[in-house]
Amino acid sequence: MKVLIIGAAGMIGRKLTASLLQAGTIGDRPVTELVLADVVAPQAPQTALAIQTIAADLSVAGVADQLLAGRPELIFHLAAIVSGEAEADFEKGYRINLDGTRLLFEAIRQAGAQGGYCPRVVFTSSIAVFGEPLPSVISDTQHHTPLTSYGTQKAICELLLADYSRRGFFDGVGIRLPTIVVRPGKPNRAASGFFSGILREPLAGLDAVLPVADSVRHWFASPRAAVGFLRHAAAMDTAPLGAQRSLSMPGLAATVGEEIAALQRVAGDKAVALIRRETDEAITRMVAGWPQAFEAERAKALGFKGDSSFDEIIRIHIEDELGGVIA
Amino acid sequence: MKVLIIGAAGMIGRKLTASLLQAGTIGDRPVTELVLADVVAPQAPQTALAIQTIAADLSVAGVADQLLAGRPELIFHLAAIVSGEAEADFEKGYRINLDGTRLLFEAIRQAGAQGGYCPRVVFTSSIAVFGEPLPSVISDTQHHTPLTSYGTQKAICELLLADYSRRGFFDGVGIRLPTIVVRPGKPNRAASGFFSGILREPLAGLDAVLPVADSVRHWFASPRAAVGFLRHAAAMDTAPLGAQRSLSMPGLAATVGEEIAALQRVAGDKAVALIRRETDEAITRMVAGWPQAFEAERAKALGFKGDSSFDEIIRIHIEDELGGVIA
Repeated sequence: MKVLIIGAAGMIGRKLTASLLQAGTIGDRPVTELVLADVVAPQAPQTALAIQTIAADLSVAGVADQLLAGRPELIFHLAAIVSGEAEADFEKGYRINLDGTRLLFEAIRQAGAQGGYCPRVVFTSSIAVFGEPLPSVISDTQHHTPLTSYGTQKAICELLLADYSRRGFFDGVGIRLPTIVVRPGKPNRAASGFFSGILREPLAGLDAVLPVADSVRHWFASPRAAVGFLRHAAAMDTAPLGAQRSLSMPGLAATVGEEIAALQRVAGDKAVALIRRETDEAITRMVAGWPQAFEAERAKALGFKGDSSFDEIIRIHIEDELGGVIA
Repeated sequence: MKVLIIGAAGMIGRKLTASLLQAGTIGDRPVTELVLADVVAPQAPQTALAIQTIAADLSVAGVADQLLAGRPELIFHLAAIVSGEAEADFEKGYRINLDGTRLLFEAIRQAGAQGGYCPRVVFTSSIAVFGEPLPSVISDTQHHTPLTSYGTQKAICELLLADYSRRGFFDGVGIRLPTIVVRPGKPNRAASGFFSGILREPLAGLDAVLPVADSVRHWFASPRAAVGFLRHAAAMDTAPLGAQRSLSMPGLAATVGEEIAALQRVAGDKAVALIRRETDEAITRMVAGWPQAFEAERAKALGFKGDSSFDEIIRIHIEDELGGVIA
């Protein structure tokens, strides 16, 4: 199976690449070719498999055609700029997150018009398509009320994904990722960054700032669970999706206090002591409008599996990022 | 007040123009200038008011800038191709219904960036943003599940309208029009055409074909009510809308059987006898997925008013289109 990953240099893209190379299969089909694309050329992993890496800005006309030259049967579209940046730079957000996606979808449609091409497209949407007022647990039929340009762009792409799939131009699955914790590496411009920071920094022996109250509740998945969602979406039977192609993923609901309690259980009081409380009114207001928990019944019924506990989420970070060692 | 109507040559656009000229005001402000735009130049009505008519395809780059040259304070954006055509011609549907709208919104944003321009934008959305599975009465928080490209395009434009309004680029109100009956003139390519046809043709002494069962229930408004919705959206206080800028309008729910019963009461057995039942499986399947009724609580609370009965809807057609005379 020929696989294209767009956004392969990002955190999830790199982990997905590693996972595909390790498993060697999508469902029961071997991965035979892998094309890794991002705005900066992704690093080619050490492997016997034929891997092509491409530096490509999807929002530039013609680029999507190049990415489809080998007619990949499976396309992961993970490329996006994050919420904070899309809010700060209106034009860039629409260009990358909306126009880039639409140019990809159009290129697939045009390729299909030349004869029989209809790939699986796995698109990463976001829980940011939902904004207040929200119920404490969000059902699979919650209406989209994005309160950011990023959430608006993701909601629009979900609609396009559904229409292009309905028309038979490709076979799309949209997955609304929970907030990923523990996000490794440096903080990015996502406003949700502190949810990872209050775990990642103390686990590395560093100070972390908590800008909201301990009672703030949110919806999470580990990077490992996120990669699992993507791989499941790539291999699943899409017939049960009908016209509704996007799914809220089964994350884990937890308060900041529960995050910290899990950190204490896994890494002790020393780690917890590194968290400094400095209320940020702007972040507090923003987070108050965010989803707290989801039913995710459709996704669960279709076989998507999330993390079992917050302790597990922290242990995954220690295993996958810290070589098993807490600072 | 300077007013721009885009889509002014269409049925609703012409009736809106006539209504504005007759009333002379939007809310308590006089209409001082009127620009009428459509793909074919709208006819300029006989009036003392300064009226400019423009033939303009909004989906062509730069055209929106021309339409905004006089900095209209109120913009009605009614221009769209209908559902049947958007389904038959995928590219044209997206070009006119999505790209045209986005180019308009962008042109307003760019004009605003040059200093202080922030018009009211009244956008006609559609109940086609909803598709099966649907409850028998649809609430104001029903999620968007369009089953046509037209419905997808309208749902996307609602999202853009909300984001551009949230950002302060304009002050948008989206109104999801019910199916308009009795639509005057010739049938257009909307799949919903028969709902009007079975009234309009018999009232003119002509045969009409009914392609679905009498039990089919749907959601209606007269052209006069639709113009009322548009004028109310133009003058209303938008503060109570918050981030959710689009509203389902208070239409009237009726079955085809109830339509025919109203026709019988208003125009007698002779009219009803002109309806010929010829089941069309394709139309029957399509209509089965359409909305049947809405709560429209938000719109009612905000002062939008629909028709009081189907008899009234038919009488409006006889008054406004037939000079009070039934064939």
